[in-house]
Amino acid sequence: MNRDDCIRLDAADPLRDFRGKFDLPQGVIYLDGNSLGAMPHSAKSRVEQVITEEWGEGLIRSWNTAGWMDLPKRVGAGIAEIVGAASDSVISADSTSVNLFKVLSAALAMQPGRRVILSEPDNFPTDLYMAQGLIAQLGGRHELKLVTAKDIPAAIDADTAVVMLTHVNYRTGAMHDMKSLSALAHERGALALWDLAHSAGAVPVHLDADGADFAVGCGYKFLNGGPGAPAFLYVAKRHQEKFAQPLSGWLGHAAPFEFESGYRPAPGIGRYLCGTPTVLGMSALEEGVNLMRSADMKQLRAKSIALGDLFIRLVEERCAGHGLGLASPRDGAKRGSQASFTHHDGFPIMQALIARGVIGDFRAPDILRFGFTPLYTSYVDVWDAVEILRGILTTGIWDRAEFRKRGAVT
Amino acid sequence: MNRDDCIRLDAADPLRDFRGKFDLPQGVIYLDGNSLGAMPHSAKSRVEQVITEEWGEGLIRSWNTAGWMDLPKRVGAGIAEIVGAASDSVISADSTSVNLFKVLSAALAMQPGRRVILSEPDNFPTDLYMAQGLIAQLGGRHELKLVTAKDIPAAIDADTAVVMLTHVNYRTGAMHDMKSLSALAHERGALALWDLAHSAGAVPVHLDADGADFAVGCGYKFLNGGPGAPAFLYVAKRHQEKFAQPLSGWLGHAAPFEFESGYRPAPGIGRYLCGTPTVLGMSALEEGVNLMRSADMKQLRAKSIALGDLFIRLVEERCAGHGLGLASPRDGAKRGSQASFTHHDGFPIMQALIARGVIGDFRAPDILRFGFTPLYTSYVDVWDAVEILRGILTTGIWDRAEFRKRGAVT
Repeated sequence: MNRDDCIRLDAADPLRDFRGKFDLPQGVIYLDGNSLGAMPHSAKSRVEQVITEEWGEGLIRSWNTAGWMDLPKRVGAGIAEIVGAASDSVISADSTSVNLFKVLSAALAMQPGRRVILSEPDNFPTDLYMAQGLIAQLGGRHELKLVTAKDIPAAIDADTAVVMLTHVNYRTGAMHDMKSLSALAHERGALALWDLAHSAGAVPVHLDADGADFAVGCGYKFLNGGPGAPAFLYVAKRHQEKFAQPLSGWLGHAAPFEFESGYRPAPGIGRYLCGTPTVLGMSALEEGVNLMRSADMKQLRAKSIALGDLFIRLVEERCAGHGLGLASPRDGAKRGSQASFTHHDGFPIMQALIARGVIGDFRAPDILRFGFTPLYTSYVDVWDAVEILRGILTTGIWDRAEFRKRGAVT
Repeated sequence: MNRDDCIRLDAADPLRDFRGKFDLPQGVIYLDGNSLGAMPHSAKSRVEQVITEEWGEGLIRSWNTAGWMDLPKRVGAGIAEIVGAASDSVISADSTSVNLFKVLSAALAMQPGRRVILSEPDNFPTDLYMAQGLIAQLGGRHELKLVTAKDIPAAIDADTAVVMLTHVNYRTGAMHDMKSLSALAHERGALALWDLAHSAGAVPVHLDADGADFAVGCGYKFLNGGPGAPAFLYVAKRHQEKFAQPLSGWLGHAAPFEFESGYRPAPGIGRYLCGTPTVLGMSALEEGVNLMRSADMKQLRAKSIALGDLFIRLVEERCAGHGLGLASPRDGAKRGSQASFTHHDGFPIMQALIARGVIGDFRAPDILRFGFTPLYTSYVDVWDAVEILRGILTTGIWDRAEFRKRGAVT
C-alpha cells in the first residue's frame, strides 16, 4: 500500500463528487468532522439568503412566507430519513442536552414504578450531567447507575426505568448493538433511549426498526449543520402522546397563537418543541441534512469503514514502536466513523499534529481521536495524516513546551 | 400637527443616524420590531465572516481562536449593560422559555417553605406554560396563582415563593414598577423574577438597582438579534451560587473539557449554561446588542415616548368614530415602546394594514399592536402609518374575505 494506491482509491470512490460541495481550508487535513463538521457551500448561500431576503426584507412576515414556522418539523423529517425513523417522529430543536432532558423526563414519567437510569461511566458527560440534574429536580427518588458497556445487559433489571446510552462512544468509537439492547430492555420492562451524536450521518441507524423508544442527536457533527447547530430528538410514535414533557413552551402548545393561559400539548411530536427556533442555525442545518440525504448510506458506511481500516493499518505499520495503542474496535462493523489511539502524551502529540495541519482532537485522559467523514475525507488524506503523524513521532518534535499548553477546546 | 412637522422632528432627532445602520425594506413602515427587530447591516457582514472564516476556514479551532467559547458571557455582558446589571450576572443562552425554566427552578428551590408562583393571566403565555410544566414535574406541590395586575401587591403573601411577571405587557405595553414590586416581594419574603422580552433595549431597566432576583429576556425583539436569536438570563450575584439549576449541561460544568462523569456547577453565572451555544445566531445577536449599546438610553426612551404619544394622538384625532379603543397606558412613563388599540375586527384591519405596507401585529382577542423602535422608527413613519390606517377604516376595505384568512403568525 502506498500513496498512489490511495489516489487510485479516491478516483474510484463513488462519493468523490461530494468533497467539492464543502469548503475545506487549504493545507489542512480535517479529521474532526465528528466534533464540528465542515461547511457545505450551500449553507453559506442559504444563510445569506435567510439574512438578506427573509430577515432583512421579509421581516416578521417570513414566519409564514419563508416557512420558518415549519423548520423544526421539516428539518426533523429530513433527519428522520437519515436515522431510520418515521418522518413525524423527529423534530429539530434546542441543544442535545436540553432535548435529552425532555425525553428522559418522558421516559421516567412513563415508568413510575422503576427508579434506575442505566448508563455507562464513559457516556458523553453532558448526558450524565443532565440525568443528574433531572434526578435532583425529581427529588432524588431516582438513581443514575453506571456500569461498563459489557455489563449493561446483565444490569437491566426490574428496577431499570430506562437504558440511556450513546450509540457510538465519543472517545473510542465503539458502537452498541441498538437492536439487541433495545430488545433486551423491552424484555425486562425498561425503555431504550439513544444518543446519536456520533451516529447520525455517520453509520446506518434504524430507530424504528430497532425498537428505540427515544433518541437525541447533534446537528453540528456528521450532519454538518454548523457551530452550535440545533439538535434533534426522536420519540417513537407509540409514545408521543403519553406525556407532556416539562419544557412546555409556547411552540409546543396545540394552538400557540391563540395565546391561551393554560398549556395544551400539541398533538404528536410537536409537543416536544419549546421556545422559538433559531432560524439562522436551523437553516444552515437544513443544508447539511439535505446534503447528507442525497448520499447513499451504504456507500457512506463502506467508505467510512475502509477509511478507518486503512488509518488503523497504516498507523500500526508505519508508527509502530512509538507507544500508540488502538482504542477503537478493530472490527469496522463495531466501530463508528472514527479511529482512536491512546498515548500517554496524547495531548502534545495532537497539538503538534494540529500545528502541522492535521486536525483531530484529544479526549482526556489519553485519547487521540480521528474522525472520518466519507463525504469529504479522502484516502489520500488518511495516507498523508499518518505520514505527518509518523514524522512527529520519529522526530520527537511533539515534546516541546508549546505543544503542552492547554486551551479551552482542543 | 402635519406631516411637515414630523419631517422636522426627524431632522432634529439625535438618533437619526441609526436608521441607516439597518436594512429596512422599501415601501414598508415597520412597526413590529417588538416581534422581530430589523436587520442591522453589521449582522449580515458578521454572520458572513463567521461562516466563511470562522466555520469554513477555522473549523473546530475557532472555539478558541474566534472566541466562540466566550460568546455566551461576552454577549451576556453586553446585554447586562442595557438592563442595568453587573456584567457577570447575565449570560446569553437557549430560548427565553428554557431560561425561564432554569431561573424559576432556582427560585422555587430557594423557597422550600413556599408553594405559590404568582403571576397574571395575561402574562405572555409561554411563561405560564413553563411554570405549569415545572410544577407538574415537581409533583404538583406548587401552584401557579394568576391575579390581574392591580391585585398583585395584595396577593403577595407568606405562601408566595416568587412573583413572576413580564415587565412590559406584550399586548398592551403596560409597564410594571419593577422597583416597588420587587421591594414588596422581598418585604414579604418572596423573590422577584422579571421577563424583559418587551423591555430590554426598549425602556430603561435597572435590574441590580431595582432589586430583581432573576430575569429572562429575548434577543430577537428590541435587541435586533435576528429570527429566533438566543435569549438571555440574569441571576443577581447574591443568588448565583445558591443552587445548581436542573438543566445541568456540560457547558455549565466547572471544567467541561475534563469530561468528568459527575456534574460540578461552574462558579457564578456560568452554571446557567447548558449545551453548546448556537454560534451563528449568537454572533448576529452580538451585533444587535452592540448597536443598542452605542445608543443613549435616555434619548431612546424620550423618542420612544414621543413616537407613542404621537401615534396615540393621531389615531384618536384622525381615526375617530371607527371603533378603535386605546389599550395602552396614555401616560408614556407607564408604557413600553408600543401602542395598542382594540377593535372587534382587529384581525382583518391588521391584515389590510400589512397588505398596504404597514406592518404591526394582531394579538388575540382584539388587539392591534404597533411597536416603535427608536433606532429606526421615524416620526414620518408614524404619520404615514396613521394615514394608511385612516384610509383603510374610512373606505372599509379591510372588510374583505382575503383579510379574514388566518395564517400561523400574524
